[in-house]
Amino acid sequence: MPLKDLGYRLLPGLKWLHGYTAQDAVADLIAGITVGLTVLPQGLAYATLAGLEPQYGLYSAFVGGIVYALLGSCRQVTIGPTALLALMTSRHTGFGLGSGPTYAILLCLISGVVELAMAVLKLGALVDLISLPVTVGFTSATAVIIGTSQLKGLLGLRGGSGSDFINTMKSVFGNLQHVRQGDVTLGLTSIMVLLLLRKLKNVKLANRVRSLRAQQLISGTIWVIATGRNALVVLVASVLAYSTCEQMETCPYILTGKVKSGLPNVALPKFETTILGKNGTQITQDFEAMLSELGPSMIILPIIAVLGNVAISKAFGGAGLSPTRELVALSMSNICGAFCSSMPVTGSFSRSAVNHASGVRTPIGGCYTSVLVLLALGLLAPYFQYIPKAALSAVIISAVIFMIEFEVIKPLWRCSRRELLPGAITFVMSLAVGVEIGLLLGVGADVAFLVYRAARPVLSVSKLQTINGINYILIRPKHSSLYFPAIEWVRSGISKALSIHGTAPVVLDCAHVHDFDFTAARGMGSLYKELAKANVPLFLMSAHKDIGLILKESTNIDFPTIDTPDDLECLLEQTHDYELQLQVTAPLVESQLIHRNPTVDEPTELSKLNGTGT
Amino acid sequence: MPLKDLGYRLLPGLKWLHGYTAQDAVADLIAGITVGLTVLPQGLAYATLAGLEPQYGLYSAFVGGIVYALLGSCRQVTIGPTALLALMTSRHTGFGLGSGPTYAILLCLISGVVELAMAVLKLGALVDLISLPVTVGFTSATAVIIGTSQLKGLLGLRGGSGSDFINTMKSVFGNLQHVRQGDVTLGLTSIMVLLLLRKLKNVKLANRVRSLRAQQLISGTIWVIATGRNALVVLVASVLAYSTCEQMETCPYILTGKVKSGLPNVALPKFETTILGKNGTQITQDFEAMLSELGPSMIILPIIAVLGNVAISKAFGGAGLSPTRELVALSMSNICGAFCSSMPVTGSFSRSAVNHASGVRTPIGGCYTSVLVLLALGLLAPYFQYIPKAALSAVIISAVIFMIEFEVIKPLWRCSRRELLPGAITFVMSLAVGVEIGLLLGVGADVAFLVYRAARPVLSVSKLQTINGINYILIRPKHSSLYFPAIEWVRSGISKALSIHGTAPVVLDCAHVHDFDFTAARGMGSLYKELAKANVPLFLMSAHKDIGLILKESTNIDFPTIDTPDDLECLLEQTHDYELQLQVTAPLVESQLIHRNPTVDEPTELSKLNGTGT
Repeated sequence: MPLKDLGYRLLPGLKWLHGYTAQDAVADLIAGITVGLTVLPQGLAYATLAGLEPQYGLYSAFVGGIVYALLGSCRQVTIGPTALLALMTSRHTGFGLGSGPTYAILLCLISGVVELAMAVLKLGALVDLISLPVTVGFTSATAVIIGTSQLKGLLGLRGGSGSDFINTMKSVFGNLQHVRQGDVTLGLTSIMVLLLLRKLKNVKLANRVRSLRAQQLISGTIWVIATGRNALVVLVASVLAYSTCEQMETCPYILTGKVKSGLPNVALPKFETTILGKNGTQITQDFEAMLSELGPSMIILPIIAVLGNVAISKAFGGAGLSPTRELVALSMSNICGAFCSSMPVTGSFSRSAVNHASGVRTPIGGCYTSVLVLLALGLLAPYFQYIPKAALSAVIISAVIFMIEFEVIKPLWRCSRRELLPGAITFVMSLAVGVEIGLLLGVGADVAFLVYRAARPVLSVSKLQTINGINYILIRPKHSSLYFPAIEWVRSGISKALSIHGTAPVVLDCAHVHDFDFTAARGMGSLYKELAKANVPLFLMSAHKDIGLILKESTNIDFPTIDTPDDLECLLEQTHDYELQLQVTAPLVESQLIHRNPTVDEPTELSKLNGTGT
Repeated sequence: MPLKDLGYRLLPGLKWLHGYTAQDAVADLIAGITVGLTVLPQGLAYATLAGLEPQYGLYSAFVGGIVYALLGSCRQVTIGPTALLALMTSRHTGFGLGSGPTYAILLCLISGVVELAMAVLKLGALVDLISLPVTVGFTSATAVIIGTSQLKGLLGLRGGSGSDFINTMKSVFGNLQHVRQGDVTLGLTSIMVLLLLRKLKNVKLANRVRSLRAQQLISGTIWVIATGRNALVVLVASVLAYSTCEQMETCPYILTGKVKSGLPNVALPKFETTILGKNGTQITQDFEAMLSELGPSMIILPIIAVLGNVAISKAFGGAGLSPTRELVALSMSNICGAFCSSMPVTGSFSRSAVNHASGVRTPIGGCYTSVLVLLALGLLAPYFQYIPKAALSAVIISAVIFMIEFEVIKPLWRCSRRELLPGAITFVMSLAVGVEIGLLLGVGADVAFLVYRAARPVLSVSKLQTINGINYILIRPKHSSLYFPAIEWVRSGISKALSIHGTAPVVLDCAHVHDFDFTAARGMGSLYKELAKANVPLFLMSAHKDIGLILKESTNIDFPTIDTPDDLECLLEQTHDYELQLQVTAPLVESQLIHRNPTVDEPTELSKLNGTGT
């Protein structure tokens, strides 16, 4: 059946239908609805965070579920709007005249295309370059930025929420006199309730009741309340706002305002838009101008999206998933989404966890979420206008507060302080300049360390004696590769060893060295000649044959090679000159540096000794 | 005598005077004059290459000699104008209205300051990042660009020579009908004579003469002619041009034109200038505008200058020199030079070789060169106007032609083809876009490889048996460090090994692994948990205690650690579950993969097997 195989190949999700039982369907339905109740308030809130009208959050929440069900492979993953991507999108939505959605949708399309390119070019591995400290610095900074951006909504301050941490802080503290009591009270209460309901999951009330059925009922209810807490709080706040505002003349809460009802248009994303100029004029932005405005976001946003998705599928699916297939599923979610007015989407960690906890069995669960979101767009939209902004801000704040990770600082401080630096750079620069720059600088710091490690291998240097008492200097690089940036270091290390320990044959122990490049080989060649001029022979010990080959090819020198230090004697006896030389320099040997047995030796670490760097 | 010590510390060159004999002085004088005869025509030519009037080449040629004598430590190094720096300077000298020298002098000052900063911050090691293939690609591209830029002078075409390879080629081939016969003849003849005279050094004519004195005389004469060939050719060409042009109405050669006589003004470099606007208007450039025009040159030019200087002092002085002291000497040559209207200077390899061959004994030789250059500026300048441009172009072309290095391609092709790529990128992009961009991209390619190596360590995987026949999978990373970009690779490598070899305990051999970071440790932690879920135990073998510490701190897991594969049995017997698991999976073992002895094993290289990259 090649047609069926082709179908499975193109839409691997079809295989979920194979043997899909009623039980599976019920489980997926329950999980789908639970996730839906989470994504509804989150979607409205994240769209506002992104600087868009609330309905765009819902437009972004239904395509991912269907596409992922068809293409994805990890049942827990739910794709949709996330706080992080909303924040990154918000950089491009503040130009007025309805250019916001156009930019967001174009960014969604481009992200999908870039992700597809990453899948085709196998560039998904780029996320490997983001180390854990950088990830933590990045998500923590994002959480802080998002949290501050929600302070306005929470305090009832008018004006859009920006992605610029410093300006937001200034604006909030400059307007503290305009704080509205109603919004603050509602917002803070909502946050407290949300945090308490979150804790509720851990409470074991049910054990005190005897009947098994009652136990199940109680714990089930608690679980539903705890999991659906966002929807619950938003519902209660909306009812409260509705009833209060109907009675009073001035409403004590800032409300979300009209949410456009109905499904989004299925249409090609727009490739031009108009923005508001400085003097209130309209400026037409063509495709090129739009691309130049999006700039690095077109690369960084997809990488962050992939990073998020990889983290989730790793957490729930283990190493068995095909990263390429995941990448294609994410990419198609964005591309198809862009045709339904979606902003950029990726896997949401919090909703995937809800999905997992709700007992989802196949990615088809995502389809039920999508149906729920579409129903809400069609039927519930008129009621969304009563949602107080403070309640939505509370939903976001109580979600992102747990993204700030202090707990990695302690183990890092205790066992690898150096790694605090890239994390700190990422965190501080994300707050000060922007999350994209912060991330790039953090990765840059990590890469600089990798290059530094390659350039400054630890060399252990020891002055030893063969069984017959011939002194020699043993240099052992504690690194498996000697590449171009390291060879000067090795050269100067050997020079310093000679000036400290006195003249003696030099043995370079290559047992652990696997890789050698042309620059390093040439450098070894000139070192060999330089030492030969000073009557110091240079030997390679236990060198791999590849190393011998590259040395021979690039320098035309046959390096004398030995297998053990004792081979040194035969070679030195053949070269009478060297022996003479050795007898002359013998008095220079410092006694405390003489060791018979290399294994009991405590070598001088040249990385300390060799501090000048060049 | 602390005052004397202080003097020596500040001006280490003073120690050359200590015991400076008449013989030393004579040797230095001869070498100094020989270098002077080389730098005179080169200086005039390189100034023209840089887009400046010829006298600026001479202004640049005398400060370096004096400063280096006071501060430097390698007797052969001669600092002055070079083709490479002239080319890089020429990018900023084409804006008209006398802004050229202002830019060149400011660039000289800034280069000096940046070099001083590099000395203070110990950043001289940055040149270690430039690998040999990149150096070769860079100098070869420079030679090609300089060579083409001199085609105009050689062919008698009017118009300035630019640093833009493609435009120069277009301009030359578009104007072939304007080629002047006189200039071409003179130019090509000069090149042929220069190349022949260069070869002369190798000719052993003297051996055919009997008398020792005659032998010495002949070989001495040959040496002087060969070494002073540039001055000689320029002199002969000038005499020819003078006599021809006096007789004929139209001169068949384009001449250099008036060279301003006299010493340069000693003055502060100017920090503003005026350039020619598009409509012939004057535009004032303030300091900020000038800095923005110089842009990346302010960093790249000093790095190239340091690279050149390091290469020379390495070639002649060996590893014994203090790189910081050399850097300070170079920096001060530029800073002091900028006060005497110098363009950026660095060590010249060709003139240093002449210096070496002329038997220089101390850096004081440079002072004699400086005196000669000053004399030429005062006395000879009126005669320089008769130098035909074609002859100067011939001097440059015959100098740079040997900078094109084909000979590294063969050994690279034979033993390390991968390294051809950064070299090729540097060469092609230098020609296509510019030498600075070319160099940066080449270094970028090299750094990307270092990161790739860190991210994709070679894993050797083998299915083995203990003495009592318990199967296990041995994973041995052939790399001394496992950092953040590698851990996903190791995880997926282990997954693949399990799916190929069937389920069995996994032993990670850490004997060669010295370095581990937090991300890698956390990754190992989740791998451990993931494998534990599938009932696969993970053991570390021969792990260094630092690795155990970081794993414990970051994951809170006590990794079971063994010293030899046979320890496996005791540990497995303690855990009964695993043994059961092993018996079940035993039939899965492929017989050809069972090896008793790890040393006779041919492991699967996971770098091939694991090709998908993520």
